[in-house]
Amino acid sequence: MNKQQENRLEKQIEFILEIDKIKSIIRQTYLADGTRKENDAEHSWHLAIMAIILGEYFDKNINLLKVIKMVLMHDLVEIDAGDTFCYDKKANEDKYSREQKAAERIYHILPNNQAQEYKSLWYEFEEGKSKEAIFANILDRLQPIMLNFETEGKLWIENNITKNQVLKRNEKMLSGPKEIANYFVTLLNLAVKLGYLKED
Amino acid sequence: MNKQQENRLEKQIEFILEIDKIKSIIRQTYLADGTRKENDAEHSWHLAIMAIILGEYFDKNINLLKVIKMVLMHDLVEIDAGDTFCYDKKANEDKYSREQKAAERIYHILPNNQAQEYKSLWYEFEEGKSKEAIFANILDRLQPIMLNFETEGKLWIENNITKNQVLKRNEKMLSGPKEIANYFVTLLNLAVKLGYLKED
Repeated sequence: MNKQQENRLEKQIEFILEIDKIKSIIRQTYLADGTRKENDAEHSWHLAIMAIILGEYFDKNINLLKVIKMVLMHDLVEIDAGDTFCYDKKANEDKYSREQKAAERIYHILPNNQAQEYKSLWYEFEEGKSKEAIFANILDRLQPIMLNFETEGKLWIENNITKNQVLKRNEKMLSGPKEIANYFVTLLNLAVKLGYLKED
Repeated sequence: MNKQQENRLEKQIEFILEIDKIKSIIRQTYLADGTRKENDAEHSWHLAIMAIILGEYFDKNINLLKVIKMVLMHDLVEIDAGDTFCYDKKANEDKYSREQKAAERIYHILPNNQAQEYKSLWYEFEEGKSKEAIFANILDRLQPIMLNFETEGKLWIENNITKNQVLKRNEKMLSGPKEIANYFVTLLNLAVKLGYLKED
């Protein structure tokens, strides 16, 4: 192994150790059993499995590997920028600029070709326009809703969240595969009926 | 959506919620910052990213998506069987039979075709013979060693682990890509020098 190759592996190892930090970035969502809030690594793992299991409902020509790369890495920027609660208006104002700065630092720990590839995937995810980014974004929205429902609306009740707030924030879900859209709407209606979500 | 399709999605959702439990299966390994031990979901997430970043050192014809599916799901059996510390001889005696029983229950929450596919991948991982399984197994061994080193050998010291124990348990690493094998041996030697691992 020559010096350049050694240096390449060193950068990759440094990146792998650096991203260990997202195991300590706590999200708002509770685990399904309600015992504690989940962290970004757990959330990203869950999304990747969902991509594999639910992939059949999306466009047959979708690049599943790309979707998985996106969801596994989409929260790395939160190592520097932190988790921003989706219903916190003030914190959301400068969220994107904080996250862009974080992307510059974190992805560039990697060798240059990998830094460019994975940073681009993050931008593509954030833009939410490609087939893969739409899929990844739907999963990112669906997973916390499933967990919130499972905990009998614990987070929604704590924050006085209404059905219309959830619908408005997640309207992209309705333009996704009809199976997923139906499931989403049915879940929200049931959540209102069971008192997990407030009717507006 | 007809009744059969609805039932299919229901099974997939049930599986996605069931596997949330591995966020509470605690492994032996500490996080890189040493503050607590990591869980199976975090570990699996880490392996999937390592597969993506370190894939270039493995056979060019490897099916990376398959490797990722393997590492994301390889610990699901621990929902029923629990985490078994690799240096605990007694607990390792019936580990495989406990895990096989768990695989029967957990994967079969999924619709049949997916249950068969992912259960097979688990068996392939356990057998450790295919190109993809060898890659996945190397990652599964390398990640805790990286974290143990990073915490200044915290787990190794607590359990009086020697360099030869680590070498013996992980000898497959030496038949992997030379870059990874070199890194592994260098790390162990350095761990002895720094007092993280006992010399035999």
